[in-house]
Amino acid sequence: MSDPIEFYFDFSSPYGYLASEGIDAIAARHGREVTWRPYLMGVAMKVTGSAPVVNRPMLGAYSRRDMERSARRLRVPFRFPEPFPIATIAACRAVYWMERADANAAKPLAQALYRAYFADGRNISEPDVVADVAAASGAGRNALLAGIQEPAIKERLKEVTNDAVERGIFGSPFFMVDGEPFWGHDRMDEVDRWLETGGW
Amino acid sequence: MSDPIEFYFDFSSPYGYLASEGIDAIAARHGREVTWRPYLMGVAMKVTGSAPVVNRPMLGAYSRRDMERSARRLRVPFRFPEPFPIATIAACRAVYWMERADANAAKPLAQALYRAYFADGRNISEPDVVADVAAASGAGRNALLAGIQEPAIKERLKEVTNDAVERGIFGSPFFMVDGEPFWGHDRMDEVDRWLETGGW
Repeated sequence: MSDPIEFYFDFSSPYGYLASEGIDAIAARHGREVTWRPYLMGVAMKVTGSAPVVNRPMLGAYSRRDMERSARRLRVPFRFPEPFPIATIAACRAVYWMERADANAAKPLAQALYRAYFADGRNISEPDVVADVAAASGAGRNALLAGIQEPAIKERLKEVTNDAVERGIFGSPFFMVDGEPFWGHDRMDEVDRWLETGGW
Repeated sequence: MSDPIEFYFDFSSPYGYLASEGIDAIAARHGREVTWRPYLMGVAMKVTGSAPVVNRPMLGAYSRRDMERSARRLRVPFRFPEPFPIATIAACRAVYWMERADANAAKPLAQALYRAYFADGRNISEPDVVADVAAASGAGRNALLAGIQEPAIKERLKEVTNDAVERGIFGSPFFMVDGEPFWGHDRMDEVDRWLETGGW
């Protein structure tokens, strides 16, 4: 079996959320797995000199319209959340804490967190909300709240983020497919085709 | 017949060039025309607070790779030009001068200018190069060189650019389809689908 596709995303990224609802199906068509890697995109944005688009003139109005239009096309439940953007450190750490406890449970938790924020409008910047979401998937609330304060878990998120930046990964969603980088949910057709053809 | 699709682009935009090689065919499938509107995207970028991507850390290397990969996929001849980016005022004015003289000749000239820069590496920021390209399409060199200095032609480009910004148009390529805005060559599948379905 070939290497998994790496899927980097930030929990505050609408396009990352849209991608999360489709990337596993694309990979599965080609017999591939997907490794989900939540990270702190803000660290990469400092390096690239990027600013969030939603509050910028013209760009902000367009991007909100585009996000909603894309969600409708993909038939993914989407409600532009408030507040936005949010700090995602608790959500990220929760996923890595879960991954250590049970590797198979990490992805469903990440999916549940993304949906809590972008479909249900729950503020996943708050550790209590993250714990509630995790509890619904069977995790212990208190264990999780303690876990996301563990030095090893904090360190793990830092490592993933720094490693991403070192490898030239800077956006959300961002896919690495056999060493080839693809940025944006609008590159998922290309990811599909790259897996089909081996590249062009 | 319905209104034409408006295609806004900057002559220094690689993704605008890629779009220019495909948008007419998409429109034609739906019995629609395309109005080509070269404009000075830099004016819009001042409003949105955007900076060119190619010289920014990580983003620059990725975007060059993505442009070349997209061109290969679309089978469009593409060689990343040097110098880049360039001033496009002469090329823009030439198109509007040509449009006034012969409306049907403006689009072929725009296409020839785009190819001169992105396929053949000719520096279309220079009026002399613009005149050479126009001459190959049958325009008089001297008439063109005088034409792009005419106050009415200068004014026309200002109007198109200011009007674009007023309408919330800020990128390249940028399409207006029956009042619906689409930004990026990666939204052309959506333009196609929008024309097919009337929207979603």
